[in-house]
Amino acid sequence: MAAYSPRLTRLIEALRRLPGVGPKSAQRMAFHLLDRDRNGADYLRNTLAEALEGIARCPTCRMFFEDGKCAYCTESRTAAAQICVVESPADLVAIESGTAYRGRYFVLMGRLSPLDGIGPEQLGLDLLSRQLAAGQAQEMIIATNPSVEGEATAYYLAEMARANGVKVTRIAHGVPMGGELEYVDSGTLSHAFTGRTLL
Amino acid sequence: MAAYSPRLTRLIEALRRLPGVGPKSAQRMAFHLLDRDRNGADYLRNTLAEALEGIARCPTCRMFFEDGKCAYCTESRTAAAQICVVESPADLVAIESGTAYRGRYFVLMGRLSPLDGIGPEQLGLDLLSRQLAAGQAQEMIIATNPSVEGEATAYYLAEMARANGVKVTRIAHGVPMGGELEYVDSGTLSHAFTGRTLL
Repeated sequence: MAAYSPRLTRLIEALRRLPGVGPKSAQRMAFHLLDRDRNGADYLRNTLAEALEGIARCPTCRMFFEDGKCAYCTESRTAAAQICVVESPADLVAIESGTAYRGRYFVLMGRLSPLDGIGPEQLGLDLLSRQLAAGQAQEMIIATNPSVEGEATAYYLAEMARANGVKVTRIAHGVPMGGELEYVDSGTLSHAFTGRTLL
Repeated sequence: MAAYSPRLTRLIEALRRLPGVGPKSAQRMAFHLLDRDRNGADYLRNTLAEALEGIARCPTCRMFFEDGKCAYCTESRTAAAQICVVESPADLVAIESGTAYRGRYFVLMGRLSPLDGIGPEQLGLDLLSRQLAAGQAQEMIIATNPSVEGEATAYYLAEMARANGVKVTRIAHGVPMGGELEYVDSGTLSHAFTGRTLL
């Protein structure tokens, strides 16, 4: 069985470790980098190096941060006494960009999924529990995704907050703005109906 | 508009340069590497470094090679006086693994595609032409893919070989072994019918 030369084999192997990349894609990526975009390969190597060296997880909110200070754990935010729990850094950035919320965050980096071995420890829920127990928040806003695991996680979080005497809210789920009822899936529509609010 | 910290932004940017990776995938890859697979990120950085440093294109067959000698341009292969033209390194490895062919190769690293700016120069056809003119091969085996561009490339290659008085062959296309006629697409079936061989 013929194979690629050792370095090329190792590069393909390394690219396969990226999520969503199979053997064929990894090959294509390696050939692309070596043949058509050596600058890109160099850029990737350098950005990986500086990211590994400089990016850490904030010990308070678990968001990625660099240069020793977390942009989402400033004093003004801590004073807000609200904590918004999200699944991923992308969700945090979406909320920051799309809403006026400027309180604290807590990034789970995942959702409860026992089958994949992701339990409360992996999501740092002990840390969150300690923050709640210390009375650092009066309201927990749960912004996990409305998937099965996201809902289970939300349920778990709500129990935890209540145990610590913290008010719990969940962001609203329903018909998206600009959406047409006719084209909304039945799950969303039924959720929107059940969760109707008084005008 | 909130955004990621500078290093994280650059890492996502670098990952986006990989073929087939959009902004969302690049984000997911960056989070995965930083959160769950820092070893993988380090491995990728190291393999990129050694690949960029050690892997070059063979000046004769254009295959990737390392350590100063090309495994596909040995003396025994040169003596074979056959040259097989393939589109990509993956095709070369497939032929080496699946057939008994042990002659020379020529890797185009693409196919003629004028709309994408890929002409004869990009595929190194001037180099191939010089090799043919120097009488280094008596037979050119064209193994480009049976796509529209692959066929166009095959036609161009065949003309070039004939101009240099070199015999040209093309690998057979037809019903794959183990395939059932009923399920083979009509293009392949019609090709198989037209290209029937005498038993």
